[in-house]
Amino acid sequence: MTSDNNVQVSVLGLGAMGAALAHALVTAGYATTVWNRSPGKADGLVAQGAEAAATTVDAVRAGRLVIVCLLDHASVHEVLDPIAHELSGRTLINVTTSSPAQSRELAAWAAQAGVAYLDGGIMAVPQMIGRPGASVLYSGSADVFHQYRPLLDLWGTSTYFGEDAGLASLYDLALLAGMYVMFAGFMHGTAMVAPAGMTARQFADMATPWLTAMTGAFQGFAAVIDGGDYTVKGQQSLEFSTLDTLLAASSDQGISTEAVAMVQRLIQRQIDAGHGKEGFARIIESIKHPQNPQDLVEHDPITA
Amino acid sequence: MTSDNNVQVSVLGLGAMGAALAHALVTAGYATTVWNRSPGKADGLVAQGAEAAATTVDAVRAGRLVIVCLLDHASVHEVLDPIAHELSGRTLINVTTSSPAQSRELAAWAAQAGVAYLDGGIMAVPQMIGRPGASVLYSGSADVFHQYRPLLDLWGTSTYFGEDAGLASLYDLALLAGMYVMFAGFMHGTAMVAPAGMTARQFADMATPWLTAMTGAFQGFAAVIDGGDYTVKGQQSLEFSTLDTLLAASSDQGISTEAVAMVQRLIQRQIDAGHGKEGFARIIESIKHPQNPQDLVEHDPITA
Ligand SMILES: NC(=O)c1ccc[n+]([C@@H]2O[C@H](COP(=O)([O-])OP(=O)(O)OC[C@H]3O[C@@H](n4cnc5c(N)ncnc54)[C@H](OP(=O)(O)O)[C@@H]3O)[C@@H](O)[C@H]2O)c1
Ligand SMILES: NC(=O)c1ccc[n+]([C@@H]2O[C@H](COP(=O)([O-])OP(=O)(O)OC[C@H]3O[C@@H](n4cnc5c(N)ncnc54)[C@H](OP(=O)(O)O)[C@@H]3O)[C@@H](O)[C@H]2O)c1
Repeated sequence: MTSDNNVQVSVLGLGAMGAALAHALVTAGYATTVWNRSPGKADGLVAQGAEAAATTVDAVRAGRLVIVCLLDHASVHEVLDPIAHELSGRTLINVTTSSPAQSRELAAWAAQAGVAYLDGGIMAVPQMIGRPGASVLYSGSADVFHQYRPLLDLWGTSTYFGEDAGLASLYDLALLAGMYVMFAGFMHGTAMVAPAGMTARQFADMATPWLTAMTGAFQGFAAVIDGGDYTVKGQQSLEFSTLDTLLAASSDQGISTEAVAMVQRLIQRQIDAGHGKEGFARIIESIKHPQNPQDLVEHDPITA
Repeated sequence: MTSDNNVQVSVLGLGAMGAALAHALVTAGYATTVWNRSPGKADGLVAQGAEAAATTVDAVRAGRLVIVCLLDHASVHEVLDPIAHELSGRTLINVTTSSPAQSRELAAWAAQAGVAYLDGGIMAVPQMIGRPGASVLYSGSADVFHQYRPLLDLWGTSTYFGEDAGLASLYDLALLAGMYVMFAGFMHGTAMVAPAGMTARQFADMATPWLTAMTGAFQGFAAVIDGGDYTVKGQQSLEFSTLDTLLAASSDQGISTEAVAMVQRLIQRQIDAGHGKEGFARIIESIKHPQNPQDLVEHDPITA
């Protein structure tokens, strides 16, 4: 063992992400015990020096730090509920993607069971773990975060947001929202140019530097939003940003306009409310104050 | 005049963008005549060495190359229609943002009037003109593009796409679509974290590197799309990408879900069609083949 840290650590869940996290720990010399529901997924890690546990009880007993990376919140409860008594007195770090409400619920469950709890949101794909660009957001127990910081830093840049266990999930999901919406925008552009014979790769060659450059606008929008005055000079106005030409050109290509129409609605609601001369950043008001009840709750809120 | 190029060039339209384009020409030593509908906007350029023309006829007579940068297609016709005979035999480069149909219409108009025509789409804000990162897309007359390439390169990276005058506008609008949709995603994330006390600037600090890193996924999506096989291994599946947690967490924050719900609909239509195990890139099929007539034509297509 090459690490100066003699923590015994157990990893439950060896999907693409759990395996990448465990691999980083084994490589750094941590004594690592791994478990996965279906067999076979531990083999590669065992060859690198990990211990495979046959049951979750065996896995948990092997160490005082338990890391959980499963599919979703329901699978976390399915795996942990039967072994709550084994976890008591130990530390649990859960990096399964969860909603803030789910993370808070699990933190309460852990407190009840006498388990120290840290919640994590992984901002990386498995191949990025341990490499530049990977980032993991944490909230929950500050003690756990500080105690295990050297281990956490093996995965990527670690940022701690506070004792509210739901914060890491909230920020994780907010960044994922940005990502999925950006992906839809890329797909819209790709679909628009396809009928003209441009390949998706050719469009990606243009869109990658273009959208990277345009992330440069975020700080300007943010300064206006935090300032609370959408009339400050030097901004592109909402009126100037009307997307009629974009919508018409998309329609002319025979593709669905729904991605761009979504943005147009956010713009139009502010223009209709008399703010057309104000800056584009004001579209955030259309999001913060939904007009339409179905824009607020398209799905049942998660309560557990 | 410090340029080795002794072209006499006229610029019609001195809004934020037209003034930036003219400024780059004057700075490079081109003999530049400028015109703007409302007076006063030429003063700064005249101080730098430009000539101000009192009428569009005077402006056009001053040179053999005419650059037009006005608000929109309608204003271009309003300015050029009365002076078609003056333009005859000259060259027109129009960098006003237009739809592909509008650009093609103006190219036909120019051909009729005996005017050589190049259409441009500017991928930059005025402050970026002449600096790294600025890019201008061109289509229409290849002769015009090659003859004036040194002048065009003063503004930014110049790319030529073909004789179809509508192509530059199409690619311009496709990139703008990606940008506006990405901006909406950033605003959604900013609105999500606001109730937890995170400022827009703090969120921008996270979102800028995150979304920049995530543009790295475009080439992977593009390879799958161009390959035409959404079942290739190693992709995140549509089922795995379901955005229920994101939607619920957004609702819990009291904000509109419409940005994320748009992406969820693109995903869900592919899952409903039986493709849930296939890769996320398949959402482009939801855009390419609109199911809903109103997703196709939300606005009247531009025909002129
Ligand atoms: N992959 C990414 O790019 C990425 C990025 C950021 C965050 N994440 C998050 O990381 C977590 C894991 O993702 P992944 O990519 O590793 O997913 P994955 O490859 O699909 O693996 C899912 C894991 O969960 C286990 N599992 C599912 N249901 C279970 C149950 N009821 N009981 C016990 N085990 C169960 C699976 O076990 P079996 O092998 O027995 O099926 C497997 O180990 C998710 O929350 C995901 O959102 C992933
Ligand atoms: N600004 C950007 O970030 C940006 C980026 C890429 C592309 N573009 C494109 O560049 C073009 C110009 O944008 P801009 O930023 O310069 O806009 P702007 O500052 O609003 O200027 C608009 C210009 O159009 C003129 N104009 C409008 N209607 C007219 C009419 N009927 N007859 C004569 N002149 C008329 C205005 O003249 P007056 O001064 O008399 O009003 C002014 O010179 C637009 O197509 C825009 O989409 C701009």
